[in-house]
Amino acid sequence: MLHVNKRDYQLPLQPTVVVCVDGCEPDYIAQVVAAGQAPWLKRTLAEGTGLVADCVVPSFTNPNNLSIVTGAPPSVHGICGNYLFDMASGEEVMMNDPKWLRAPSVLAALSEAGRRVAVVTAKDKLRRLLGHGVRGGICFSSEKANQVTQEENGITDVLGLVGRPVPDVYSAELSEFVFAAGVQLMAKHRPDVMYLSTTDYVQHKHAPGTPQANAFYAMMDGYLGQLDAAGCLIALTADHGMNAKVGLDGAPDVIYLQDWFDRELGAGQARVILPITDPYVVHHGALGSFATVYLPEGVAPSQVMPALQRLRGMELVLERAAAAQRFELPADRIGDIVCVSERSTVIGSSASRHDLSGLDAPLRSHGGISEQRVPLILNRKLRGFDSSRRLRNFDAFELALNHAQ
Amino acid sequence: MLHVNKRDYQLPLQPTVVVCVDGCEPDYIAQVVAAGQAPWLKRTLAEGTGLVADCVVPSFTNPNNLSIVTGAPPSVHGICGNYLFDMASGEEVMMNDPKWLRAPSVLAALSEAGRRVAVVTAKDKLRRLLGHGVRGGICFSSEKANQVTQEENGITDVLGLVGRPVPDVYSAELSEFVFAAGVQLMAKHRPDVMYLSTTDYVQHKHAPGTPQANAFYAMMDGYLGQLDAAGCLIALTADHGMNAKVGLDGAPDVIYLQDWFDRELGAGQARVILPITDPYVVHHGALGSFATVYLPEGVAPSQVMPALQRLRGMELVLERAAAAQRFELPADRIGDIVCVSERSTVIGSSASRHDLSGLDAPLRSHGGISEQRVPLILNRKLRGFDSSRRLRNFDAFELALNHAQ
Repeated sequence: MLHVNKRDYQLPLQPTVVVCVDGCEPDYIAQVVAAGQAPWLKRTLAEGTGLVADCVVPSFTNPNNLSIVTGAPPSVHGICGNYLFDMASGEEVMMNDPKWLRAPSVLAALSEAGRRVAVVTAKDKLRRLLGHGVRGGICFSSEKANQVTQEENGITDVLGLVGRPVPDVYSAELSEFVFAAGVQLMAKHRPDVMYLSTTDYVQHKHAPGTPQANAFYAMMDGYLGQLDAAGCLIALTADHGMNAKVGLDGAPDVIYLQDWFDRELGAGQARVILPITDPYVVHHGALGSFATVYLPEGVAPSQVMPALQRLRGMELVLERAAAAQRFELPADRIGDIVCVSERSTVIGSSASRHDLSGLDAPLRSHGGISEQRVPLILNRKLRGFDSSRRLRNFDAFELALNHAQ
Repeated sequence: MLHVNKRDYQLPLQPTVVVCVDGCEPDYIAQVVAAGQAPWLKRTLAEGTGLVADCVVPSFTNPNNLSIVTGAPPSVHGICGNYLFDMASGEEVMMNDPKWLRAPSVLAALSEAGRRVAVVTAKDKLRRLLGHGVRGGICFSSEKANQVTQEENGITDVLGLVGRPVPDVYSAELSEFVFAAGVQLMAKHRPDVMYLSTTDYVQHKHAPGTPQANAFYAMMDGYLGQLDAAGCLIALTADHGMNAKVGLDGAPDVIYLQDWFDRELGAGQARVILPITDPYVVHHGALGSFATVYLPEGVAPSQVMPALQRLRGMELVLERAAAAQRFELPADRIGDIVCVSERSTVIGSSASRHDLSGLDAPLRSHGGISEQRVPLILNRKLRGFDSSRRLRNFDAFELALNHAQ
């Protein structure tokens, strides 16, 4: 029995694979199953467990991946965005460094208990956070699969293992590489626990049920079927959902919040932070449905919140303490005000700072409450499970280890 | 100046066409414009007015069509569903008869003011409600276009006018006939005001951006372009949006509410009414996201509401008075309790009473708050318009007549 972040976990009795499908709005699953293109998912939903759970808001990649591997909300693990304003240094920085982590992961605890752990992530930005504290395990990204070393990654020649070249960082193949690597790792290394995390390149471009989306999920279904056939217990969830974020004219429907504050309070007085920001913004232009705002001294949240709440497309505006409580976020890292926009609307900083030239399809994005519902699927029936409780994506390890084996 | 249901309307100075596109979730417009298949919409959104408005909840066809033509919510006009339990007679009946109407329409008032009015609706179920009180005008449905008479419909030989056969009631052509008839009526009869109302056969089957949906909207775009070229002022809105309503396995995600009440209170004690019910249920199986419940004597709403609210997929449960106030509904026609389900969930009565054999695609439906956002598009810029007010689809006539001409 392990004790991690106030939860107990049984040790794995069989190879256990937790999969985080980036941007997996539940309808992606429904549509590919209905189309008859996902036989493993269809069988698993009929014979195993298919639930819908709530992810963490902000519904972004880093906070949710870290919640899944720690089994805890951001108030515990500290990762509340892909990007933050570091009040200590006065700088805006990527939240990719383990120094931001405030809690150990279930993966790390399993490795300390002598279990072999493997982690494969599509983008390298997550690798160090996910692998933090994992002893003697394997941890690499598709993106840098050609740069692995035994010291850093616990493995060599990933390209030889997988039999594929390094995929483009903007491609469906970047995620396929994760699954292909997972299947080969399970065959050749047989880890006790494996965590696979994909990228939402496809989901940012293609709606549920489209041929491109169905092809992606059919691909995934094939690899998961192989892991299932290899005897793995599989728990699949997602970091967040995904919605179209456009106006009637098909252009992004954006509240440019820094521009708004600059008009209201003077240029540069308030600082708007978009925690979706990461090094790979081509497919979403750093536009998501969640923003935090640092106000200048002397301006109280109550002076601007009523007007913010009235902006068309704004769903919710909360002060720091209320946001920290409602969304279980670290209060010291979320600014004075948290803004969440509606299902079809995103929040930008200044119009001039967003390069939307890379958008070759109508914007789809995430970050808000409207992207909170995600699948939670296991290829086992659950035992001893209270089905009336609120389900979270970060229950995945608990369900797999405590209720499915 | 006309005065109808406490609102003032200027008389039309040019042929004015109000279009209700059944089931037009705003993303349908966005995706077809982005795909480059709707040049009229693209130009109109750039040079005219493109807004998103709230429809009436329950987001069903009859209440919203009647709200649009009366400029008022159901609390005023009385039509709160397609279907209701008539407490006076103790029977469940279709709400297609003008006897249920409690308010005059703007169309009727315009006709009484000597303006020529034409109404074309896809399905005949709406014809009598929409045409009620219209003097000397034209009013017919695509569905029964071959059965028109001068006495009943104010026109003969619609098939000859349109040059098309009567379409199947389950087809995209049923709606195309509405537009084709509108263009011919405008050319040959030049009415002062025309109301066109389509059916959501396509939207129930096909998501925004799919080839079938884009083809439908491209078709519509062509006809609207012809009406525009003929000098018409056009206001386009919708009765309700549309969402996928399926579980992870692609099957309808249903709360069978009559079954639930039968278990809780005994068989047949409570009466669950699904106001989406109409004679044409093949494409949605009478499953929508809104239900009303009549409780047996001696059972108070407070005895069942907490458990109802906890059902997975239930968004909101309100007592009669609270529901009547929040959604502006006639309190005497909505039962003791109103239930609204979430974006992906529908409410059924008893599982045994729903024939889902006609569903040949994953269920898409409406009825809830999640389908409340609809487009409101005019091919003119608005003047003297308070853009901060809450917009409703039933503002269409006011915007067209008072702010666009």
